[in-house]
Amino acid sequence: MSKSEQSWFTEAHESSGSSIGFRTHARLHSEQTPFQSIEIYDSTDWGKLMVIDGCMMLTTRDNFFYHEMMSHPALFTHPRAKRVVIIGGGDCGTLREVLRHEVVESAVQVEIDERVTRLAEQYFPELCEANSDPRAQLLFDDGIKYMAECEPDSVDVVIVDSTDPVGPAEGLFNAAFYTSCFKALRSGGIFVQQSESPLAHLGLIKSMRSALRTAGFQAVRTLTFPQPCYPTGWWSATLARKGADLSGFRERGAQTKQFDTRYYNAEIHKAALSLPEFMREELGE
Amino acid sequence: MSKSEQSWFTEAHESSGSSIGFRTHARLHSEQTPFQSIEIYDSTDWGKLMVIDGCMMLTTRDNFFYHEMMSHPALFTHPRAKRVVIIGGGDCGTLREVLRHEVVESAVQVEIDERVTRLAEQYFPELCEANSDPRAQLLFDDGIKYMAECEPDSVDVVIVDSTDPVGPAEGLFNAAFYTSCFKALRSGGIFVQQSESPLAHLGLIKSMRSALRTAGFQAVRTLTFPQPCYPTGWWSATLARKGADLSGFRERGAQTKQFDTRYYNAEIHKAALSLPEFMREELGE
Repeated sequence: MSKSEQSWFTEAHESSGSSIGFRTHARLHSEQTPFQSIEIYDSTDWGKLMVIDGCMMLTTRDNFFYHEMMSHPALFTHPRAKRVVIIGGGDCGTLREVLRHEVVESAVQVEIDERVTRLAEQYFPELCEANSDPRAQLLFDDGIKYMAECEPDSVDVVIVDSTDPVGPAEGLFNAAFYTSCFKALRSGGIFVQQSESPLAHLGLIKSMRSALRTAGFQAVRTLTFPQPCYPTGWWSATLARKGADLSGFRERGAQTKQFDTRYYNAEIHKAALSLPEFMREELGE
Repeated sequence: MSKSEQSWFTEAHESSGSSIGFRTHARLHSEQTPFQSIEIYDSTDWGKLMVIDGCMMLTTRDNFFYHEMMSHPALFTHPRAKRVVIIGGGDCGTLREVLRHEVVESAVQVEIDERVTRLAEQYFPELCEANSDPRAQLLFDDGIKYMAECEPDSVDVVIVDSTDPVGPAEGLFNAAFYTSCFKALRSGGIFVQQSESPLAHLGLIKSMRSALRTAGFQAVRTLTFPQPCYPTGWWSATLARKGADLSGFRERGAQTKQFDTRYYNAEIHKAALSLPEFMREELGE
């Protein structure tokens, strides 16, 4: 391919005044679903890109940071996570990581937009390789409604793998939703939600943590990890636990895990929970 | 200011096919020095930007990650770092962090391009606030020559705070330079060098580590940290030690440090040295 056929997909993140771009060969797909616009690009160095409403969702090359850190810290903290619910997560990468844990008996993915999953199957087939696992259930429905109607004390881990807190995902970042999740979790159950950039969105992280405590969660902790394709290149997830603390994890289990990861390991688990000085000060840890 | 007066400074990183940009109000300065081109921009959200040969060097907002992680891990590992040499580091931010350590008796900064420091004094005065410390010496000279001529066994910590391994900094990434540094260090002395992105430049990190061992260093370790303004938003520094290991650090000293930091603390020190699975595999740790 000649250089002249190359262009760049660039996401300008208005609220932080910064942008991240990737060199592309071609836009492979573009559609407007009932919920959002979805585009797929082929890039020169990052594999495929999925872009929703102009925001970079994932690339083939760097999604492992996010998917591993959204799933393994929670699953290696819970002593025996049999039933897992994923809210959002339509690209199926989190579902794949969850199902690497043999202890999991059922994993329900509740994605509002079926088109995200259908496009992931087409353009990110490696993320969808666990979709046919008999333990997996793919629902295309409203995650807020699903959690509100969920049987109380029935779930061990809830993972909220959503877009930013605007548009369809807005209702996933408030005390009402957290209260539904709290009720659905068994005692000792763990909630984890992507919580944006520690540098650009610390106020959001702080308000999420406060709302999680209001909803009844006993312990709340935030972890950080690199994520090159997201604004500032640095991202976070916030964990909360019902009726138990978040001070330890199954370190031996993580050290002897029977599956491969690219980012996560037992040392990274501890490292991710080590907060920088400015976060400690702002979050009061 | 109206929106129409805003534009973006964007650095396209050709070898990784990705770009990072910042929204700017104005370009405040531009010059060609005998060594390189230097530009200063005023940004909407990141303070001032310094750009050398088209590459983002630092922003007011996020330089704390880099400057803290280039200095405090080495200085809290060495039991008593009296004499420190900084190669490059013309913006003086590393010098400032080094001089926060009361144990340091002398810190020599050897920057090849005096204009970098003069522009830092003008546009990043907060980074230059330790320049008048009586322990500080600012030389404008060739760092390779300085280290080659340095008195043997005279230095406790060498910090190589340079641009990328092309152009003026190319000679700072090879065994000949590392051998000079090894000779100049006292036994137990520590060498630390910025070592690019763990995701985009792992081959460089691997060859640096090999060259450091060839030069005689007994222990070599790489640490990582977020750095939003650099390619992939994730960066590394590689440490090496003469005649001693790098397995521990003065944890109690870091916990009770008498100065403020924004990123570094004792927990972050340990966390930064915890390598992701793909780095462990590639680097053989």
